[in-house]
Amino acid sequence: MKTNTLTKLGLAAALIALPGLAGAQEADVTPPNGEIGYIFTTFMFLVTGFLVMWMAAGFTMLEAGLVRQKNVTMQLTKNIALFSLAALMYYLIGYNLMYPGDGWSIDGVLGAFSPAAMEPVGLADTETDLTYASVGSDFYFQLMFCATTASIVSGTLAERIKLWPFLIFVIILTGLIYPIQASWKWGGGFLDAGGFLDFAGSTVVHSVGGWAALAGALILGPRLGKYKDGRVHPMLGSNLPLATLGTFILWLGWFGFNGGSQLYMDTAGNVADISRIFANTNTAAAGGAIAALILTQVIYKKVDLTMVLNGALAGLVSITAEPLTPGLGFATLIGAVGGVIVVFAVPFLDKLKIDDVVGAIPVHLFAGIWGTIAVVLTNPDASLVQQIYSIVVVGIFVFVVSAVVWFILKAIMGIRVSEEEEINGLDQAELGMEAYPEFAKG
Amino acid sequence: MKTNTLTKLGLAAALIALPGLAGAQEADVTPPNGEIGYIFTTFMFLVTGFLVMWMAAGFTMLEAGLVRQKNVTMQLTKNIALFSLAALMYYLIGYNLMYPGDGWSIDGVLGAFSPAAMEPVGLADTETDLTYASVGSDFYFQLMFCATTASIVSGTLAERIKLWPFLIFVIILTGLIYPIQASWKWGGGFLDAGGFLDFAGSTVVHSVGGWAALAGALILGPRLGKYKDGRVHPMLGSNLPLATLGTFILWLGWFGFNGGSQLYMDTAGNVADISRIFANTNTAAAGGAIAALILTQVIYKKVDLTMVLNGALAGLVSITAEPLTPGLGFATLIGAVGGVIVVFAVPFLDKLKIDDVVGAIPVHLFAGIWGTIAVVLTNPDASLVQQIYSIVVVGIFVFVVSAVVWFILKAIMGIRVSEEEEINGLDQAELGMEAYPEFAKG
Amino acid sequence: MKTNTLTKLGLAAALIALPGLAGAQEADVTPPNGEIGYIFTTFMFLVTGFLVMWMAAGFTMLEAGLVRQKNVTMQLTKNIALFSLAALMYYLIGYNLMYPGDGWSIDGVLGAFSPAAMEPVGLADTETDLTYASVGSDFYFQLMFCATTASIVSGTLAERIKLWPFLIFVIILTGLIYPIQASWKWGGGFLDAGGFLDFAGSTVVHSVGGWAALAGALILGPRLGKYKDGRVHPMLGSNLPLATLGTFILWLGWFGFNGGSQLYMDTAGNVADISRIFANTNTAAAGGAIAALILTQVIYKKVDLTMVLNGALAGLVSITAEPLTPGLGFATLIGAVGGVIVVFAVPFLDKLKIDDVVGAIPVHLFAGIWGTIAVVLTNPDASLVQQIYSIVVVGIFVFVVSAVVWFILKAIMGIRVSEEEEINGLDQAELGMEAYPEFAKG
Repeated sequence: MKTNTLTKLGLAAALIALPGLAGAQEADVTPPNGEIGYIFTTFMFLVTGFLVMWMAAGFTMLEAGLVRQKNVTMQLTKNIALFSLAALMYYLIGYNLMYPGDGWSIDGVLGAFSPAAMEPVGLADTETDLTYASVGSDFYFQLMFCATTASIVSGTLAERIKLWPFLIFVIILTGLIYPIQASWKWGGGFLDAGGFLDFAGSTVVHSVGGWAALAGALILGPRLGKYKDGRVHPMLGSNLPLATLGTFILWLGWFGFNGGSQLYMDTAGNVADISRIFANTNTAAAGGAIAALILTQVIYKKVDLTMVLNGALAGLVSITAEPLTPGLGFATLIGAVGGVIVVFAVPFLDKLKIDDVVGAIPVHLFAGIWGTIAVVLTNPDASLVQQIYSIVVVGIFVFVVSAVVWFILKAIMGIRVSEEEEINGLDQAELGMEAYPEFAKG
Repeated sequence: MKTNTLTKLGLAAALIALPGLAGAQEADVTPPNGEIGYIFTTFMFLVTGFLVMWMAAGFTMLEAGLVRQKNVTMQLTKNIALFSLAALMYYLIGYNLMYPGDGWSIDGVLGAFSPAAMEPVGLADTETDLTYASVGSDFYFQLMFCATTASIVSGTLAERIKLWPFLIFVIILTGLIYPIQASWKWGGGFLDAGGFLDFAGSTVVHSVGGWAALAGALILGPRLGKYKDGRVHPMLGSNLPLATLGTFILWLGWFGFNGGSQLYMDTAGNVADISRIFANTNTAAAGGAIAALILTQVIYKKVDLTMVLNGALAGLVSITAEPLTPGLGFATLIGAVGGVIVVFAVPFLDKLKIDDVVGAIPVHLFAGIWGTIAVVLTNPDASLVQQIYSIVVVGIFVFVVSAVVWFILKAIMGIRVSEEEEINGLDQAELGMEAYPEFAKG
Repeated sequence: MKTNTLTKLGLAAALIALPGLAGAQEADVTPPNGEIGYIFTTFMFLVTGFLVMWMAAGFTMLEAGLVRQKNVTMQLTKNIALFSLAALMYYLIGYNLMYPGDGWSIDGVLGAFSPAAMEPVGLADTETDLTYASVGSDFYFQLMFCATTASIVSGTLAERIKLWPFLIFVIILTGLIYPIQASWKWGGGFLDAGGFLDFAGSTVVHSVGGWAALAGALILGPRLGKYKDGRVHPMLGSNLPLATLGTFILWLGWFGFNGGSQLYMDTAGNVADISRIFANTNTAAAGGAIAALILTQVIYKKVDLTMVLNGALAGLVSITAEPLTPGLGFATLIGAVGGVIVVFAVPFLDKLKIDDVVGAIPVHLFAGIWGTIAVVLTNPDASLVQQIYSIVVVGIFVFVVSAVVWFILKAIMGIRVSEEEEINGLDQAELGMEAYPEFAKG
């Protein structure tokens, strides 16, 4: 399916890539009907796109449930703000930066710094190419991936980062960092040319969010009292139903995330592939959840719900780089390994005194790396060397640039609230608004 | 797209409007294939319709999160009851009343008072016209708009209105008030004939809910203690994660609300237009949220989450009258103005001692008016005079009729609980069931 | 629509059933275009399938809201675990067991014990039959029904059953009990051959979950203190907004549950039928909610929100056996009767000292039986004798096998926590993790 991921290029590039595309499909060298295929694919992007948009609510609920009461309003605020800012930045810069088009010429790269534009109403006055989908639907779908990347960061840095420095980082992440590295793969850049395979973004989305979060966590430092007297002090999530709801929302949204990344629904082969992806995505999540369920029972003698939730999410991240080629059994196993990774990585990070409030680094970075490597298990077109090389290149770029941005923000305005504010909670300190003002504290 | 909104007429009227319709689209004077176009449009109504249905849950969560603990069960009860009653009334009267068909003859108007009926199973024994969509899908989609109107009212009047008078008002609103005024525009009535443009209902749905709520709020009066000693006493929402979840649900549902109002998905032009609408709807919500984010920081030195949530919703309402013709930049600005309106309108209403518990009047009425006027900015077919005239006509009709109904209900059965009941909370007084019986009060 | 439900057979059987199928539709003896019809139906399964998947979140929220605080984490854990285990078991055994194919020969039955397998990527190297949908989409859709069955059980047995025995029961239910009895109807088995009609599973899904829950509830016994001194002691749900959210999620998901069970969306007749189903499903839920609203007001002088929620769900279950043939009026009435059943059945079960924590037996078993019988009211192909016979056969099978499994689990490992653990709550006893650790108890 390399050709499919290759063609994540917007309308212009889709034209170029078309001949290659057909080879990936069955007998249908040409779609059965240009206009009908265009309607199918466009509508598919809208449906899968709204599912991915819904993931923003999933991250919000997950994080609101996993932080302590005194920081809940802040976590809600950060999440709706980051989604809104991602929408703005991806429109203003990101979309065209990610798809520089015409062979990465100087003109293409310069022209990239322009806002996204859709086709005219009713496709009037245009000779629209009907072999792909509408620009509006492609923009809508791709935007949601950019926003997802930002959502990942907010969880790790919760409960101590100031609101505005965080939002400024989001602006840079969604306007520059994400689109630039995404262009290397989905914009037809050098990683794509080298044969890197990442179907829906285990690396391009999830590990990118994870690297940015890791850089932030290291520079920000752990929460007060988290690592004291040589011990790890658990800081329990305040509302597990919300965290569970968030996980189910993410699980649901992921069908859009992976399914829509097939990029075409104009032939029987493509829709059958999207079906494979839906089924594989589901079973990988189940595999991750079950692995964490059993493993926490075995290791701790008690099932740990938050590990099961993160296990399911890690299963989803793991299958994201290649949700198409595995069969159901292999997909379950790939997801299960993701669940195992989470169970071991969460205490491992704590040993390193890296404080990741919701477990986003194990879920999105570690399972993202695993998923990217696992492509070689089922996709004969994948090269282990190229996969690892791409993981490293993207990792270094995102980690270094993120670290620089975090350092600059720290120097200019500070990124962490004061000790007193942290103890009182960000809701009171920065927002003056409690999430549950009438509920007595235990 | 006037012709598109014009044709919100049910099956019979769709036939009449068809010749006009085609002109609004690109080259495709006829759909590429009758039956295929029919399947596309019908399925589109089902998908966008379930998104709009989901908005009922959004309003419920938003309102349950913004009322105080002691009134939460009541707010939940009102919301699920109003949605159910809307479904019943729109079936019994509303649908046919809204689409009187055949040129508004006496026969048409009288015949309108009949329950909705769908095509026979399998379209058996009929010569079905395949140029639009199935009646069942159209009914399902339109019903959800009627229910949305009622949802808007419940938030404003929360925490003091009695259950049954409220539900009786809902019956009249969804069975008569909404369908009658909707017929003026979407049923091909005089506002439509005059050139009024309201794509998905900034006026026809949102301001109607707002006017009905305003009439109720004035007659009902503010909550006890809200305006005391010349000051405004804030009454904080009890559960902000729920309010945020509700906002995300509404944001998601709005893609169906606006996107489905394109009414056709049978051509490339139509599906590309739906894509434009999805992208514009999203960016308008983001614009509204960001405007409220920045403005509350500037004015109050603290970001106000509830304003950000209402800002996003106001952005959505603002783009609803014309989600198609703006580009992404204009759509963002239209939404941002909606966010600005909310930030100023909420304290403004408090100055007037109009107690709107969740901010529904600023969001749905004020931003609805703004959105209806903003059509003239991007749609050359719109006339400012006609837009304002239509806003006023609908406003006077809905406000006066609602006020009369509220007064009658007040005279007959009383609409407000006693002071003691209000202080103890409606949950205890009217339902005898607490929303959070085990959580200690703070 | 007998032929449609008949053809719930997977790809192989779909071929056989095809000639019969066409007769159920209008003039289109053949689909308008093989490949286009295949894309429509496959995508329809994916969309309706993700709606049914979302029901897992609905059950989780409903149950988390209706149990007491001290058992919430456990209820969340059981729900995400059961969904994951259902995914695994239905893949490993259930799917092929449910569709034994080729006329129930010995070979067919033996071959049934094999994992599900999807078509190759891109439908490569195959002569794919394009008259139905992709195997991947069919598997994905059918899996969600199996998982729903397990979700029903968890609510009834909440607050006292041990985690692992419950999960082992889920494994047997989803891997064996559900698929075996489902094959009798949807796999073309003897109930189907006898003319049993159950469009989307009032019996095959809902009453099956109900019977398994009833067997468990009888063997497990009621919660401590529930029936003491000859009185029923109410144990209030801890979070009604969650319960309401869960109900709305289920309502939304049910459009997929019933709509997707049309099984084809390749013709105008089929998509119009799916529209009828969506509209009928909605109105039945409304009917159930309104019936419970009015009835609790009349009987108890106070509206009971939990009854209204269960009334809506009972309306949904009631229409599930035949969501296609009724008109909107009849569908509303069928749902309303479901709501009435719930209002009387909940206290009735309490009289029998059968402790059903969330009311799943009234909703899914009693309303499921009613819905299955109600098919004869609107579908001339239904036989009352066959409907009752099938209800009894499925009931005896599921109840007896479930009871045997529960007894074995009780004998081997015990199924109920100790008295002390029950008093302290399962969260502390079995998981060591509170759902709301910071909220003080009232």
